[in-house]
Amino acid sequence: MGTDGNRSWQMTQFGLPNLNPVRGRIPEPGPHELLVRTKAVSLNYKDKLIVDGMLIPDLSFPFVPTSDAVGEIVAVGSAVSRFRVGQRVLGQVIADWPDGDAPPVLHKHTLGSSLSGMLSEHVVFGEDAAVLAPPSLSDIEAATLPIAALTAWFAMAEATRPVPGQTILIQGTGGVSLFALQFAAAFGLRAIVTSSSDDKLERAKDLGAWQVINYRTQPAWDEAARDLTDGIGVNHVLEMVGGDNARRSLNALAADGRLSVIGLLGATEISFPVLPFMRNRIVVQGISIGHRRSFERMNRAIEALGIKPVIDKVYGFNDVPQAFGHLEKGPFGKIVITAT
Amino acid sequence: MGTDGNRSWQMTQFGLPNLNPVRGRIPEPGPHELLVRTKAVSLNYKDKLIVDGMLIPDLSFPFVPTSDAVGEIVAVGSAVSRFRVGQRVLGQVIADWPDGDAPPVLHKHTLGSSLSGMLSEHVVFGEDAAVLAPPSLSDIEAATLPIAALTAWFAMAEATRPVPGQTILIQGTGGVSLFALQFAAAFGLRAIVTSSSDDKLERAKDLGAWQVINYRTQPAWDEAARDLTDGIGVNHVLEMVGGDNARRSLNALAADGRLSVIGLLGATEISFPVLPFMRNRIVVQGISIGHRRSFERMNRAIEALGIKPVIDKVYGFNDVPQAFGHLEKGPFGKIVITAT
Amino acid sequence: MGTDGNRSWQMTQFGLPNLNPVRGRIPEPGPHELLVRTKAVSLNYKDKLIVDGMLIPDLSFPFVPTSDAVGEIVAVGSAVSRFRVGQRVLGQVIADWPDGDAPPVLHKHTLGSSLSGMLSEHVVFGEDAAVLAPPSLSDIEAATLPIAALTAWFAMAEATRPVPGQTILIQGTGGVSLFALQFAAAFGLRAIVTSSSDDKLERAKDLGAWQVINYRTQPAWDEAARDLTDGIGVNHVLEMVGGDNARRSLNALAADGRLSVIGLLGATEISFPVLPFMRNRIVVQGISIGHRRSFERMNRAIEALGIKPVIDKVYGFNDVPQAFGHLEKGPFGKIVITAT
Amino acid sequence: MGTDGNRSWQMTQFGLPNLNPVRGRIPEPGPHELLVRTKAVSLNYKDKLIVDGMLIPDLSFPFVPTSDAVGEIVAVGSAVSRFRVGQRVLGQVIADWPDGDAPPVLHKHTLGSSLSGMLSEHVVFGEDAAVLAPPSLSDIEAATLPIAALTAWFAMAEATRPVPGQTILIQGTGGVSLFALQFAAAFGLRAIVTSSSDDKLERAKDLGAWQVINYRTQPAWDEAARDLTDGIGVNHVLEMVGGDNARRSLNALAADGRLSVIGLLGATEISFPVLPFMRNRIVVQGISIGHRRSFERMNRAIEALGIKPVIDKVYGFNDVPQAFGHLEKGPFGKIVITAT
Repeated sequence: MGTDGNRSWQMTQFGLPNLNPVRGRIPEPGPHELLVRTKAVSLNYKDKLIVDGMLIPDLSFPFVPTSDAVGEIVAVGSAVSRFRVGQRVLGQVIADWPDGDAPPVLHKHTLGSSLSGMLSEHVVFGEDAAVLAPPSLSDIEAATLPIAALTAWFAMAEATRPVPGQTILIQGTGGVSLFALQFAAAFGLRAIVTSSSDDKLERAKDLGAWQVINYRTQPAWDEAARDLTDGIGVNHVLEMVGGDNARRSLNALAADGRLSVIGLLGATEISFPVLPFMRNRIVVQGISIGHRRSFERMNRAIEALGIKPVIDKVYGFNDVPQAFGHLEKGPFGKIVITAT
Repeated sequence: MGTDGNRSWQMTQFGLPNLNPVRGRIPEPGPHELLVRTKAVSLNYKDKLIVDGMLIPDLSFPFVPTSDAVGEIVAVGSAVSRFRVGQRVLGQVIADWPDGDAPPVLHKHTLGSSLSGMLSEHVVFGEDAAVLAPPSLSDIEAATLPIAALTAWFAMAEATRPVPGQTILIQGTGGVSLFALQFAAAFGLRAIVTSSSDDKLERAKDLGAWQVINYRTQPAWDEAARDLTDGIGVNHVLEMVGGDNARRSLNALAADGRLSVIGLLGATEISFPVLPFMRNRIVVQGISIGHRRSFERMNRAIEALGIKPVIDKVYGFNDVPQAFGHLEKGPFGKIVITAT
Repeated sequence: MGTDGNRSWQMTQFGLPNLNPVRGRIPEPGPHELLVRTKAVSLNYKDKLIVDGMLIPDLSFPFVPTSDAVGEIVAVGSAVSRFRVGQRVLGQVIADWPDGDAPPVLHKHTLGSSLSGMLSEHVVFGEDAAVLAPPSLSDIEAATLPIAALTAWFAMAEATRPVPGQTILIQGTGGVSLFALQFAAAFGLRAIVTSSSDDKLERAKDLGAWQVINYRTQPAWDEAARDLTDGIGVNHVLEMVGGDNARRSLNALAADGRLSVIGLLGATEISFPVLPFMRNRIVVQGISIGHRRSFERMNRAIEALGIKPVIDKVYGFNDVPQAFGHLEKGPFGKIVITAT
Repeated sequence: MGTDGNRSWQMTQFGLPNLNPVRGRIPEPGPHELLVRTKAVSLNYKDKLIVDGMLIPDLSFPFVPTSDAVGEIVAVGSAVSRFRVGQRVLGQVIADWPDGDAPPVLHKHTLGSSLSGMLSEHVVFGEDAAVLAPPSLSDIEAATLPIAALTAWFAMAEATRPVPGQTILIQGTGGVSLFALQFAAAFGLRAIVTSSSDDKLERAKDLGAWQVINYRTQPAWDEAARDLTDGIGVNHVLEMVGGDNARRSLNALAADGRLSVIGLLGATEISFPVLPFMRNRIVVQGISIGHRRSFERMNRAIEALGIKPVIDKVYGFNDVPQAFGHLEKGPFGKIVITAT
């Protein structure tokens, strides 16, 4: 890290070529804020969509992208009481959602979206929008938690009542999905993982998948899932695609099953037949990351359960464009950028 | 009621003209069964769909339609312990769902569907599939409860956690909707009712509607509902139509809102945009009547709250075809047939 | 209200004679704070216990007692975004509990306890610890909500899942109990109220009590409650006394019943027999007011349901000692002090 | 097993010497009943209390004690639809509790209490009061589930919402406690086990205990538990003793903690201080085994999670008195009697 000023990656318009390093002033923390020296930043697929102009068409420039970072507190505001200098913290992405119900309008205070992102050597968090990083994780591992892990945790441990021994079907092997798989194994759930790659499915088994389905060779993966569960269906599906894919998800569900809609990867619509939906008393729930208290609970669980995030590749702070490029390739595990 | 045998209305093939009176033997109750002299039967729109061959294409003939009846126990099987002769009971429509989770396959033991219906002077209920009728209701009133009231109750008081003071939007003024309106008023909820008829909306106001919307004059009823709630949206919508109507329902919902899918009236599909669904953490839940324990709880509530079902018209046992014909006209309240 | 400075009632040591009027500086709101001109203050019995030195032996002096106030915002800090000057607000008593789980250590930031109280012409609230007052209430009415109403609401609508038609037994006619009675009537619950005064029981009936029990003439009020419920017992009891009184409460409960422990009036211990507790699967829950989000939900419900707090007597700002003296007499409804 | 008649152990009055082998007729299953050839029976401490006349003073003689058995269906009643001959089943101890709420009066139809017990070569179950035994367990292992395992499961997975990563304190190493320990490890919870025996604590560690406390050498085990959790306290305590022990349990709990009252081992009363109970919003819940649906869910989980019950010793059907005698010694794991 340079000693003169605050190095960042900043966009002046949409498109990866317009993401460039700049130097600015190190910010001053307000009375309730923390100044954090960034240690590592992880990427989510939505970061690429934002950089490409696909997700937030009315973004204000200049803009520093990405939402997930871990760092060390180097200064605190005059009124800060929850933290002290030297602690290692993660930023709460939906910064105005401490617990319980979300704010009436989401994403008015969201890191890497309405608020500035994390690709800076120094960032500022509100003290009410930060949590301690789990001591058992390295910086690189801890940086992966704020969106991918918390989304999986919230869908599984907060918005759904997990009954051990039940079955969960996890679509794909993206960041949220791999955390969901690790949580499922640790929570006593049977995880079925789908992918188009036998190689990735093998690695999913190593992470604790009970069963795997290659949806390329078995396009009727919903029927395959029913067969694996003696015709009963699975109790929970994490929907990562949307559109007609949700039809198969519905069909894969057991009576009283639950579909958590998480993904941004496919269609912008979701649709399914009403009659089986009513007859089986299905619940479909929309998920949007989670609140700070759930982040704290998750971190305690990660610590207690010894969960280690899966990292695909680590890039240096100078290689941000290469890191973004890697997202296209469908990594198995998170892409992380070190900031020091 | 005739003294010789058991008079019923029976179909030998689909179509209302094929529903005709017959005489048969009065059934013998098995060890755990109740023989019940029917007092009154109420109709649901699905009864018409079944008679017309629209809902259960593979129905077995001869078939006695309808599901909702109240009657007096005239004999009990040798092992019956929950009831005694002379008590007034209602049949539990999904006969094998006592409490908690539904049976793995729904509708294997459902009155007026896989089991024989109620248009008979004598019917048989399993003792585990009957509940006491609320003493505060007449026979005609009590006969309306098994499907319409219990569906509204289950969606509102069991599958949803009702927080008093919240807002519920009720589509239309059919049987389920009017019970939902009466429950909403009694539970401390603000009910918004939609209809295409100003006359029906006036009557909804008399039943306790907080606000009404004529969706013919205000096709953007979702925006109207948002306006009525200061732009926040409603907390719960009872979806009676499906298809694209669900888009408006979704748009009418507040953050963390809930859509209970109940109706059979419109499309066979449901679809909506994913992004606002996720961002607002909406829950969409399928409803299929309810279990016996909820029926008992509802009856206590009806008694405690002094709720009186809305009756549109009462027909004699000889006028069953006329009663079915009335269903087409969009009654305001239930159609009941007396059996004595 | 005087124009020169901030008039308050302040204690320098325990005992009502040591509560005296003083003049101080009008406080400056910090960046996230609201300066509020107090309109009305309501008393709770715990205020008397604090003044007498019974509840917080290690109180720091000088101390301004009381926790419940309504007022108008006259200035806002530089960073305030949730409120603006001119709005009428209530203070959130547990100031650091916005939603969900409480802070790890309760009462580090509680009005009228670890924080200064409300008996001042001007008070300061954090913007995250204030809610809009319901427009349908006068200042005097609104001032009664922060502790008594919110405690009843939290026990009934948040910590318990209210099923309409169920029975709740409310002990006494103190501030929490009267709000509980009004909520019960509005939520579709049957309320049984106990008191030693037939006069108060009559007034409870006027407020919507379904049944009343004079525990002086019927010391076995638990058995009386069982009789009123056909031997089944009540579903929920609000415990205001503790000690051996809880035995009767337990005995009054139906299977799967719930006992909310609220009161500070009696013993410091609670005890009951284990076997019926286990056999009936009773739940006993401790209640400590509630979080800000529940305050907001309650205010919407009070507005929607047209609930008007019961006021026993209103005192002027010069008559604070008389108002405290009134607390001893067992008022029926709240004691309020106007601040203007 | 003898070929002539049905061998049983029967009491004619209280006291172990009055428990003797008899021969009777093999019962005929009623229309909805299953005739089961018993394979193995497990003992619970309450069986000893019943035999000794401590738990059910008004027991009807002759009486066959014990509640937990596994066996093979050898005949089914004419109306049975849920099972067929040859299946291996376990009896549901509270035979009239299929799901949801318990029957209004518990223990009117309870195996080994109001109904005859399991120490017979042939027993009869209602088809609604039986579940399939998990295929992964031997007869001896499966016989241990109906009370001990289901009580632990119900307290942990049904009556409490388990959040992975939380801490649970399990008192002692009796039958319920060891299942609780195995469930805790499989559900992703941190289990703290207490015992007076270092040897048993070592074995608890082998079963997955996170921490152990010897309450003989550390009588202030509540403070020890607080220390192990960084002063926060544990989230859930399984209370096996009652009386003043519950004070320590309360003190060991974190804010929003939960105390499940399970045990019959100690005092008949439970008592604790009100103020910390309210301030920390503690929930105390009574547990009484569980319903059939939870039994089915538990069996799926046992199968999915590979849990193997801990067996202390197996006795032959002729050695029933010795098996009962073993209960006194504080076994580590279940005592099982084979019936073949």
